[in-house]
Order: sequence, then structure tokens, then C-alpha cells
Amino acid sequence: MKLPQDPQRKAEAIAEFMNQHDQLAVEFGMKIEEVSPGFAKVSMEVTSKMLNAVKLCHGGAIFSLADFAFAVASNSHGRVAVALSAQISYPSPAKEGEILQATARELSRTRRTGLYQIEIRKEDGTLVALFTGTVFVREDKVEDWISKSDDR
Amino acid sequence: MKLPQDPQRKAEAIAEFMNQHDQLAVEFGMKIEEVSPGFAKVSMEVTSKMLNAVKLCHGGAIFSLADFAFAVASNSHGRVAVALSAQISYPSPAKEGEILQATARELSRTRRTGLYQIEIRKEDGTLVALFTGTVFVREDKVEDWISKSDDR
Amino acid sequence: MKLPQDPQRKAEAIAEFMNQHDQLAVEFGMKIEEVSPGFAKVSMEVTSKMLNAVKLCHGGAIFSLADFAFAVASNSHGRVAVALSAQISYPSPAKEGEILQATARELSRTRRTGLYQIEIRKEDGTLVALFTGTVFVREDKVEDWISKSDDR
Amino acid sequence: MKLPQDPQRKAEAIAEFMNQHDQLAVEFGMKIEEVSPGFAKVSMEVTSKMLNAVKLCHGGAIFSLADFAFAVASNSHGRVAVALSAQISYPSPAKEGEILQATARELSRTRRTGLYQIEIRKEDGTLVALFTGTVFVREDKVEDWISKSDDR
Repeated sequence: MKLPQDPQRKAEAIAEFMNQHDQLAVEFGMKIEEVSPGFAKVSMEVTSKMLNAVKLCHGGAIFSLADFAFAVASNSHGRVAVALSAQISYPSPAKEGEILQATARELSRTRRTGLYQIEIRKEDGTLVALFTGTVFVREDKVEDWISKSDDR
Repeated sequence: MKLPQDPQRKAEAIAEFMNQHDQLAVEFGMKIEEVSPGFAKVSMEVTSKMLNAVKLCHGGAIFSLADFAFAVASNSHGRVAVALSAQISYPSPAKEGEILQATARELSRTRRTGLYQIEIRKEDGTLVALFTGTVFVREDKVEDWISKSDDR
Repeated sequence: MKLPQDPQRKAEAIAEFMNQHDQLAVEFGMKIEEVSPGFAKVSMEVTSKMLNAVKLCHGGAIFSLADFAFAVASNSHGRVAVALSAQISYPSPAKEGEILQATARELSRTRRTGLYQIEIRKEDGTLVALFTGTVFVREDKVEDWISKSDDR
Repeated sequence: MKLPQDPQRKAEAIAEFMNQHDQLAVEFGMKIEEVSPGFAKVSMEVTSKMLNAVKLCHGGAIFSLADFAFAVASNSHGRVAVALSAQISYPSPAKEGEILQATARELSRTRRTGLYQIEIRKEDGTLVALFTGTVFVREDKVEDWISKSDDR
């Protein structure tokens, strides 16, 4: 499969591929609501299987949502981007049944690295987590991964 | 249920409770291999449902493992500790079928805060992730949570 | 000395005290341009003594500017706030003679903790650094420190 | 000037150059106590000009020490390495007159990136700060910078 040339349509095609092939995104029921080059909005409902021992949404589930929005935004240009490091702060907890929305923005992008910030908010606007992540941009293209996946 | 007074036995009882009641730990098949006050060793096998779109273990799954070891170590003294922030770096990727082991160490603990470092390694010793986390120590006890859970 | 009751005037009085008594701020010629409860804008010119061995502004000097804006914003309410952890990313380098402006915003504040984000930009708007910091709020008041300093 | 071929002697020559040409290291009186490929130990005395408004060593000064040890360790192989991001936690404060020692260790190094951890301790062993940093490895050599500096 060839990806579209148009940056917006390319970002959409990549996002669709990632939403289907990222197993953790599938497992947690994440939905990509919006995507454009360097940008992604992803939502997820906190379910019972994401709770920790004190009945709050596990930091790992919140991180996973941020991390997926980060991956969609940083791969949207067509080159494979892998996380080097990430930082997350949790100003407010989340509970079962709440809908969380992660918005990933590209703050900087060079040929080999990129910096992204992801905010996770509840529907009422409460900030649940703030995530900052750095990627290393590899030589391979996302397209190559899509092709491999087509082969099977 | 009353927790044992002895610090080591108390840490073990808390760890057992957390391993059963942390839904994400259950979901991902995490096993607490060792625990002592301020310390925890937790292992997990990378399964197909943890893979991202380029067939590597999702950063969110790796983070979840580190985060659970962090939670076990920081709650082991008996007071509820909640994460304020965490940072993770990924020096090396992990693949399906590999066993990851997270070792959480307490670097500092005051009455209200604590600093922990978690290393995640493969069986051959390769460092997959380095995680640093800060907790805020709440007034409530882990025991109270265990009691609530007994009631049901 | 008693601090004003009015939140805005209190924040200004604290900022003025900090700008005079923070020795690193004095050393680096930092200027507080604006302050309000939970907010601070601080500027600094990159001088020759801030350069590293490859003639770029030292990460430590950039961090110091962010950290001071963070301190002014987080102490502006009147209680002493101390940094627990901070994270900084450097999307773009800074050079001698450039003016850097740090803008600190409060993202969250509870009775005992607070989360702040600081952006450092050049005059042309280029993002030089993004800083996220968490404070622990102590029992003592900034006022007590101002009084001690008056005594001498 | 040509750098020695031997890795240890090369690391020492680079460290010496950096200790002389990093203006912030000079300003703060930092001393490189030990260096080897991927490793550095640097000490600094907390002086009055490093204090914040509550008479503790400024986070920016502590960060600067860690950052310099990080720079020495990450440039020790001969290629210019620039910081992409760093995280610091402050388990314990430092005061005027105390000697701080930063030990930087290379946890991972690929052709284009590197991960380092720096511990800052007092002479009595107290952990003052824990720093984790990621570098991007540029194409240019430290040698080129040493040559340029010779020309003047």
C-alpha cells in the first residue's frame, strides 16, 4: 500500500493503521478523534480493568493513552519515530467510567528528533496528566510497516 | 483485616493485596517476585496484546510494569502513596515473548514524599527502561483499603 | 515586615523579595517582568559567563532561569514551596546576547503540592526550553523568611 | 590540536578542555575529579552566590553541576553530544559550604543517542539530587571545537 502524498491524508492513513495495529490501543479501546501532521487527539474510557488497588485509574493506563497520542502525532509525517524519554505528572486522579481525552502537540521537530506535549483532560476540562516526550526519528518509513502488514 | 506489625511481613501482605487488586497488574500478568520495605521486584512477559504498530512492546506496557513496582515499593510501609510525577527513558526496545523484570528501590523517603528509581531489564541483563518517580504520602493507610475490600 | 493581604500585592511583594535575595537570580541578571498569584514572567540575557565549551548557552543557565520563574510562581501565594522534581527539554539552543523569557504557569495546586509549566522563548518566539516542575508546599510562610531577612 | 587515540587519554584531554572552556563550570568553581570513557566525577562547593531566597542551594546550581558532569561523560568519546532532555529530583537540600560531588554514568549509548544518570551526593553520602539525561550525538567532533579554540 502506498500512502497518500497529501500531508493531511497521509497523517489520517497512518493514524488509521496505528489505531488498528497498536494492540494496547485496541485493548484499552482508544479512539483517534482527530489527527493532522504533528497533532493527535485520542480518547479512552476508564474501565474496571484499568484500576489500581485503591480504585483509581492506574498511572500506567493514563500513561498508555498519552503515549499512544504521542506516537500518532510523532509518526504522522511518515517517518518512524521512537520514544527516547517521557515525563508525566498527575495533577488529578481519574475514576472508572470517566472519559479521558489526550491532545498531543508537536512543539519542535528536527530531522532526527522531536518534542511533543500531551495533555490529558476529563470531559469537564480537569487536567488529569501532563506528558512531555522526546522521539528519535529513524530512517525507516511508516509506509514500510504498513506494507509488511498488508503481506500477511 | 489487620496487617502484621513486622515491617517485612507487613510489606508482603500489602504486596499480595496489591497484586490481586491492581487490575492492570492482573491484566498484564505481573508477578511480584520479591518485596521488602521500600523495595520490590516485579516481572512480566511481553505478550502480543502489549505490542505497538511496529511490533515492539508498547511504551505504555513497559511504563505500567515500572509503575506497579513503584507502587508496591512506595506503599510497602503501610501508608497510601500516590504518584506525583514520573520520568521514563527507553534505552532498548523489548519484543514479544521476552521476560521483563522491574526492580524498584527507595532512594529517599520523608514523612510526606518519597523518591524511587525503577530499572527494567531483560533476562540477559539489557536495560530496557529507567524510571524515576516521586510520590506524595497520604494520611490514609493501605490497611483501610484492605479492610474495605474484605467487606465485599 | 507584614505582607499585604491582597493576593496580587502579596505576590508582587514576594517576587520583589525573591528577586533581591535569590543570589543566582542576581548573579545571572534575571528580571521579574510580571507576577500574579501562580504566575511569573522572568527575563535574562545570555552572557559570556553562561556559555558551555561549544559556545552555546549552558543547559544549567537555561534551567536556572526556568527554575527561578518556577520558584516565583509557586511561592507567590505566600507559603514556602520547594521543588521535588523538574524536567526540562531543549528544543532549540540559545546564544550569547540573546534575551530569554521564561513564563511560569500554575497547572494545578493542592494544599500540599503544585504542578507548574515553564516555557522559555527567545524574543522572536522560538521555544528554547520546556520545563515541568512539581513542588511540595511546606508549613512555613514566605513572610517568615522576609522577616528574618529584615532582622539582619 | 589532535586528540590522543587512546580512549582514556582522549577522555582526559576532552575533560580538560571542557573544564577550561565551560564558562559556567569556571564560574561555579567545578572540578573534574575523575574521567573515563562514558564516566565523570565532578565536585563543587556551595558558595553564597548559589543560594536562593530561603538560603538553600539553588536548584539551578545543583542542576548545573549535574549537567556539567553529564556533558563531560557524554562528550568523552570524542563526538559532540547535546542534551535533548533531562530530569532532576531533589531528595535533600544542600547548604552553603557543603561540597557536592556529581557522578555521571553512561547507561546506554547508540550511534546517535545516549542515556546518562548522574547522582549528586554530599561528602557524608547524602543523596542531594538524581538526574537522568538523554543526548543526541551530532556529526561534529569535540576535536574540531578544540582546534577552533586554539586558533584564537
